[in-house]
Amino acid sequence: MEHAGETPLVGILGGMGPAATVDFYSKLVAATPATRDQDHLKVMIWSDPSVPDRSMAISGEGESPVPALSRGAQALKDAGADFYVVTCNGAHAFLPEVRERVDLEYLSIVDVAAEHLGSLPHVKKAGVLATNATITAQLYQRGLRAVGVDPVLPGVEDQRTVMEAIYAVKSGTLGPTERRALIQVTEWMAAQGADIVLGACTEIPLALDPQESARPLIDPAVLLANRVIHEASSRTGSEMEAF
Amino acid sequence: MEHAGETPLVGILGGMGPAATVDFYSKLVAATPATRDQDHLKVMIWSDPSVPDRSMAISGEGESPVPALSRGAQALKDAGADFYVVTCNGAHAFLPEVRERVDLEYLSIVDVAAEHLGSLPHVKKAGVLATNATITAQLYQRGLRAVGVDPVLPGVEDQRTVMEAIYAVKSGTLGPTERRALIQVTEWMAAQGADIVLGACTEIPLALDPQESARPLIDPAVLLANRVIHEASSRTGSEMEAF
Repeated sequence: MEHAGETPLVGILGGMGPAATVDFYSKLVAATPATRDQDHLKVMIWSDPSVPDRSMAISGEGESPVPALSRGAQALKDAGADFYVVTCNGAHAFLPEVRERVDLEYLSIVDVAAEHLGSLPHVKKAGVLATNATITAQLYQRGLRAVGVDPVLPGVEDQRTVMEAIYAVKSGTLGPTERRALIQVTEWMAAQGADIVLGACTEIPLALDPQESARPLIDPAVLLANRVIHEASSRTGSEMEAF
Repeated sequence: MEHAGETPLVGILGGMGPAATVDFYSKLVAATPATRDQDHLKVMIWSDPSVPDRSMAISGEGESPVPALSRGAQALKDAGADFYVVTCNGAHAFLPEVRERVDLEYLSIVDVAAEHLGSLPHVKKAGVLATNATITAQLYQRGLRAVGVDPVLPGVEDQRTVMEAIYAVKSGTLGPTERRALIQVTEWMAAQGADIVLGACTEIPLALDPQESARPLIDPAVLLANRVIHEASSRTGSEMEAF
């Protein structure tokens, strides 16, 4: 367990999928102002890819991810994590339930992203590229409307395209067809008046080149990485600030 | 804790440095035969960048990393890890001592790499790009000679070049000068008759493009990732084999 004055331990609950977990940790390391190993954050990653599929669960076609997520959160708490983040947007639909079982604070990727968009005066409409789980749970619809931003959601066919790209990342089979189709979805979002596109699934930045998105692509994982650094810094009282 | 029949939990003791830990986990994910999240390994990463510098410790100029490494190994054991790996070659100089304190098996990156080279009949001499810690502890000199391979070590000046490149990766300041200097070290190794070059520090693959190495670059981290998959597979009795 951590004690006062010690470096905080940041918990990362990942594995959903593992490539997105690698990507998030990579962004966290890159955003940390450090000139040597010892300047970096102390992190524990619990990467459990066996967590049941969030989109299947929310549509009632699969088992609940809550027990597996709770085991992960408990492992992070037992090891002394001060707080944790979950590198899967869709999993956030289940976190309030996890929080009832495991008394450990988490920083929500949805809250961090919504707060950021709310601070950008030019953003009135945001395209949301996310899994069925995230959309069905209305995570970003609620989060964005609360800060005065209108969500632009894909139609049924485009949503299928988004899911195909996400699952292609998870299966390691992503190719030019999925990439191109995803770009077309961003073009449709731009036509609907979206000012930016939110990569609201941690696999999206692995499938969509920001240069090719029809509107600026905002990656909630990058925002979360910066918030983690800020939060860890405020707990040590150090001067660490994200780049 | 894990029980019979459950998926094994792979422990990764990292943070030395964090970028090398990201790199190792990325290689592990890439090498895993998977078509969906749930096919991937369950992993716990303890990433503690505050572990005292291994090269400083071995030269008597810094404190021992054994207590910090032992805390990490204990956290992995407490969380139910079946075995663990350490994503830092130099830290292996201290692992026998850690093993006396924490009763959890580890797979040695040095053993895995030496065994692999011993199985390649054309490899008689291997250039070793490593930190001062790894070289002073003679980790690869002993490991390679045990399998009939002669290590080719850089001279004092070249070793300083290698260390500069490694610390530039750790500080995020790696540039063309360090990259070029490292390539020249591989050219010198080739002139000494090295058949391959061993990237025997987990930062080396982040600093040296395999295409630019004067001899084929062998990355012990890739070999270790494949061994981890094989080991986890043998513990589940599944058919999982590394790509």
